Amino acid sequence: MSSSSFIHDNWLLLSPSAQTLYHDYASTMPIYDFHSHLNPQEISSNRRFRNIADLALSGDHYKWRALRWLGIDEQLITGDASDKDKFMAWARSLPEMAGNPLYHWTHLELKRYFGIDELLSADTAESVWERCNEQLQGDELTTHGILKKFKVNVVCTTDDPIDSLEDHMKIRDDRSLETVVAPTFRPDRALNIRDAGFTGYVAQLGQAAGVEIGCYSEFIRAVTARVDYFHQHGCRLSDQAFGELPHAPSTEHEAAYIFARAIKGEEISALEEQKFQCYTLLQLGRMYHERGWSMQLHIGALRNNNSRMFSRLGRDSGFDSILDFNMARSLNALLNELDASGQLPKTVVYTLNPSQYEMIASAIGNFQGSGIKGKVQMGSGWWFHDQKEGMLQQLKALASIGLISPFVGMLTDSRSFLSFTRHEYFRRILCNLFGTWIEEGDLPRDYAWVGQMVENICYNNADAYFGIK
Amino acid sequence: MSSSSFIHDNWLLLSPSAQTLYHDYASTMPIYDFHSHLNPQEISSNRRFRNIADLALSGDHYKWRALRWLGIDEQLITGDASDKDKFMAWARSLPEMAGNPLYHWTHLELKRYFGIDELLSADTAESVWERCNEQLQGDELTTHGILKKFKVNVVCTTDDPIDSLEDHMKIRDDRSLETVVAPTFRPDRALNIRDAGFTGYVAQLGQAAGVEIGCYSEFIRAVTARVDYFHQHGCRLSDQAFGELPHAPSTEHEAAYIFARAIKGEEISALEEQKFQCYTLLQLGRMYHERGWSMQLHIGALRNNNSRMFSRLGRDSGFDSILDFNMARSLNALLNELDASGQLPKTVVYTLNPSQYEMIASAIGNFQGSGIKGKVQMGSGWWFHDQKEGMLQQLKALASIGLISPFVGMLTDSRSFLSFTRHEYFRRILCNLFGTWIEEGDLPRDYAWVGQMVENICYNNADAYFGIK
Amino acid sequence: MSSSSFIHDNWLLLSPSAQTLYHDYASTMPIYDFHSHLNPQEISSNRRFRNIADLALSGDHYKWRALRWLGIDEQLITGDASDKDKFMAWARSLPEMAGNPLYHWTHLELKRYFGIDELLSADTAESVWERCNEQLQGDELTTHGILKKFKVNVVCTTDDPIDSLEDHMKIRDDRSLETVVAPTFRPDRALNIRDAGFTGYVAQLGQAAGVEIGCYSEFIRAVTARVDYFHQHGCRLSDQAFGELPHAPSTEHEAAYIFARAIKGEEISALEEQKFQCYTLLQLGRMYHERGWSMQLHIGALRNNNSRMFSRLGRDSGFDSILDFNMARSLNALLNELDASGQLPKTVVYTLNPSQYEMIASAIGNFQGSGIKGKVQMGSGWWFHDQKEGMLQQLKALASIGLISPFVGMLTDSRSFLSFTRHEYFRRILCNLFGTWIEEGDLPRDYAWVGQMVENICYNNADAYFGIK
Repeated sequence: MSSSSFIHDNWLLLSPSAQTLYHDYASTMPIYDFHSHLNPQEISSNRRFRNIADLALSGDHYKWRALRWLGIDEQLITGDASDKDKFMAWARSLPEMAGNPLYHWTHLELKRYFGIDELLSADTAESVWERCNEQLQGDELTTHGILKKFKVNVVCTTDDPIDSLEDHMKIRDDRSLETVVAPTFRPDRALNIRDAGFTGYVAQLGQAAGVEIGCYSEFIRAVTARVDYFHQHGCRLSDQAFGELPHAPSTEHEAAYIFARAIKGEEISALEEQKFQCYTLLQLGRMYHERGWSMQLHIGALRNNNSRMFSRLGRDSGFDSILDFNMARSLNALLNELDASGQLPKTVVYTLNPSQYEMIASAIGNFQGSGIKGKVQMGSGWWFHDQKEGMLQQLKALASIGLISPFVGMLTDSRSFLSFTRHEYFRRILCNLFGTWIEEGDLPRDYAWVGQMVENICYNNADAYFGIK
Repeated sequence: MSSSSFIHDNWLLLSPSAQTLYHDYASTMPIYDFHSHLNPQEISSNRRFRNIADLALSGDHYKWRALRWLGIDEQLITGDASDKDKFMAWARSLPEMAGNPLYHWTHLELKRYFGIDELLSADTAESVWERCNEQLQGDELTTHGILKKFKVNVVCTTDDPIDSLEDHMKIRDDRSLETVVAPTFRPDRALNIRDAGFTGYVAQLGQAAGVEIGCYSEFIRAVTARVDYFHQHGCRLSDQAFGELPHAPSTEHEAAYIFARAIKGEEISALEEQKFQCYTLLQLGRMYHERGWSMQLHIGALRNNNSRMFSRLGRDSGFDSILDFNMARSLNALLNELDASGQLPKTVVYTLNPSQYEMIASAIGNFQGSGIKGKVQMGSGWWFHDQKEGMLQQLKALASIGLISPFVGMLTDSRSFLSFTRHEYFRRILCNLFGTWIEEGDLPRDYAWVGQMVENICYNNADAYFGIK
Repeated sequence: MSSSSFIHDNWLLLSPSAQTLYHDYASTMPIYDFHSHLNPQEISSNRRFRNIADLALSGDHYKWRALRWLGIDEQLITGDASDKDKFMAWARSLPEMAGNPLYHWTHLELKRYFGIDELLSADTAESVWERCNEQLQGDELTTHGILKKFKVNVVCTTDDPIDSLEDHMKIRDDRSLETVVAPTFRPDRALNIRDAGFTGYVAQLGQAAGVEIGCYSEFIRAVTARVDYFHQHGCRLSDQAFGELPHAPSTEHEAAYIFARAIKGEEISALEEQKFQCYTLLQLGRMYHERGWSMQLHIGALRNNNSRMFSRLGRDSGFDSILDFNMARSLNALLNELDASGQLPKTVVYTLNPSQYEMIASAIGNFQGSGIKGKVQMGSGWWFHDQKEGMLQQLKALASIGLISPFVGMLTDSRSFLSFTRHEYFRRILCNLFGTWIEEGDLPRDYAWVGQMVENICYNNADAYFGIK
């Protein structure tokens, strides 16, 4: 391997303009991580990681998929092999992942979290294992240490409506942590009416809300109570996930009837589920709008495709992928229905299918306004697209079909405390794009002005948009 | 801002090859604008614009969308604010539109129409306002002045079958204008059988054609009469717009029955509409073929998505966007049906969904021939895709899956007389692409030969293909 | 034209890294052409070509399409014009195909097969015609000569289950040819139950298998017998082509009932065809898995779109194009059904619709494992996408969403012995991509390591994966 660093100062910054934009503007901004799957309990407890495998490999289904792709035994991935054996398998496999973002992410993590400059491989695995683990014993790499080290001003977790938010309360009470940690209201289980656990979930929801739920209006009352509860605890953001975005206009009466049958355990058809979801999503949107929240829609994941592995490992284990489907009509209909009565909340639309970027960038342009900059946003390259090619596709579609200057930018969407360097990764790619635009005459060579746009996308836009404090 | 011009001689021309191709070949070609939405009355009257807002902002829903995206008050967009206030709002917003083609278009327009080199912003707004308005008082920037200044040899407007073409006659009679201005036959209203105004429209059509329309065959007779009337007045081009391309085989008997019910005011289903459109489109295609016309199909816009704003501002106000849908079967079926009887006219297929470029480039390859170069064309990047990324996607798909040398090239599709610089924009992007291909070894370094291709795409191909004089 | 060669040593290799990777690694690898449509009879007979038109133009519907696109008379394409006239028409048309891969392919072929460096055009046509034809009289450019000249270690043909494989036996017996020539089992006709010739085909299949086919289980028995027969003759690979991938779960009972009706000549619905295909494809997949074969799925071609020309020239004449359709659910369902019982064979998924690359790269990641590197593959840019842009799209999607290091790489998919230079074309594009990644910091500058990946993709991965010998 080359003697100079792989991750060097000007990594991915291919022009003087890119370097100026990154070093003078982007790199100094703090982090506003408005969407993550971090466990608040790990923050409230200021968790310490037992070793690098614990921090880097547990729960990270991106890495699990890549290991399976190389034919590595499941034993060394999610099985009961030792942490060290798992790390060794990971380390010797990494060179074969070149071209995939995991190769970039991992080396950026090693460098920024641990100051390690070598490329990870079978040769360096032992030494990396030891140096990382030693550092993980210190205070700099506990969860609090990490949030401080990476200047994370705001981080939003993802929480179920029935969550007590106890950990969030503890975090707020703990003055030692400067990061604002806010919950996100994610009512997926309240919408998935065909799931086996729906009835049980409704009971839990009622309990959490102090509402006896016997009908749809009580259900909505309970959801509203939880929205208010979340609001009291700092939440300003919701999130929903869908495969296809549901599109089946429905009346209150229909939604109520479907709900009534569902909680009696009767079978609900796919169409009825869509009607229930459509109608309820509108109710939710109006609640969010009333409270000044933002609504996130994560659309287009086809989940749990491998039934053999699902029965073994359950969900979120690396067997999800991209759905292809038509969405222009349903997306416009949803936004229009909310907008028609002046109740469209700030909305961020994410898609897992990049062939939809142009369509979405154009659709959200139909619902801008109300005095809010970039009121309806297209979310950053999500999941499989949280990588160089994917980010560039999203950024270019947004810029050329919509506007990029009010873009709220990057988020980690991660379960891991090791992912904060993804903001650096995004910023380098963003600055290289804007730098190329300057070099190639697409933008004037005015660093102060372009640099301001960069800073806004890195931090200021999200701060102004989400209003979390 | 930099002291050198943003729009300089070699703007967007990143290699010596690109510069040679542009300056020695593309830049000297006149303009053949075969598709626009210019108002012929504004040409026949040699309209003078009262100020730069009148010329640049009225009716331009691209700009309206961008202003709404920044949260600008509608009052300053389509409201009753003064022209100057609207221009000031536009000027101070423009820097935040960097990355969007509006940023390029606007500065290219200021430079080529007005010789203004400064970047438009709050700082320069007042001065730009004054300098533009002063020049607009002269004769160089009336509609005739503009057509002459930009060497527009041919421009096609878009006209309803019931139009008297009076303005076109006046233009032809006025020997002072050297530009050939031809109408385009756009029978959308004759196809939209479910529109509330359909019956009234049919009556108007009958009147225009001197045919009492009581049945489908009389309807077709009236349409034919109008096609002939347009032909007599120089028309050689038609245009139709569709969301999804209709695909529902139908018989004459069915089409006639649906038509009969429609003009009695009975309700027509979506499927019936498709059948009527499919069948009628075939009749139209055969008429066009018989007369040597070209048929344009603009496919994939989802219109009037914001019902609140639609009720306030009506159509074409900036609330349209991209539809996603499958089209391979319907497009092939339509072209095949016409080809089977040897009655496929020259056809230009435009899509608003760029994920379809490759599909279309391959589909049109199934119907080439009959001694015509590039008989079936894929239209240039349309609407949201009339920009650098969009043009490049379209050009690359056409070149690598079809043939680019017979491509009929650029058109403005614009309602504004300020848009002729879009041809320059396209040519720079085209020459930069071909220049890159030379520099990177994709094309031999033979400027005379590549330059000839460039000139053909800029002008000669369209001239040979459309046959308007 | 320039005095230096168009196809020079560093053609398409734009950086020193790209040049190192190509010259020191890729260029020396032999060829493993695991999917072609070469006629085994032309190999067994060591066919000599009568002239360059015979070798380059007969049967090549890519070229026919391009000629039609330029309006060339069909007489000079598939008609009864002389070979020389056809070649002359081709030669004078080629310059107008610049931008299309045909321009690259043709010059690469002229250079590598014939040592001809001039650009083909009307000017050089006569001289090229003579020089090529002279060389074609020698032994170096018979089919055996070509396989030797291009170091083709393995080539797989595409064969019908009823084929006797006689030519394959002759080839194996002929010790003078060092290339391993293996058949591929392509049971399309056994799946196309709605085709007019299905009943007759089933009879032939029974005869070939020595099974009297009166019911579905006998049909499967016959298919199994042919799979075994192919296996005995070196086959380790199957192939199926579909428009949309069929997706209609079915039972053995249903499939049997549909089959029974089909062989009685009864009409089968589109849905029934899907059910039959779905069920039978699962049976086939299990057979392939049991024997360690790989299964190729070529998905997304819409065929024979021009009925006028179909009635004149039949299939495979240049009237096929790209289908657009949704596939995520059906692809995942198929792979999952086979995987659920541990019977998923190694599988290569090709799509004709490049907007599906990301979806496929993610879907195949759901079914990796079982100790096989890259068990489920996304096939190289296919047909219309076997060109620079198309290859880059496929490579980037595979690398960034899946893993590129275990990729089995390029194949010609060609009916022509002139296509082996496509491997060089692919390798130059691959090395230029990897070289760019090194230059731009995406990969470390470690030539030995990246070079090894390149060699693996060029040859070693396919060799390890397919296991043909």
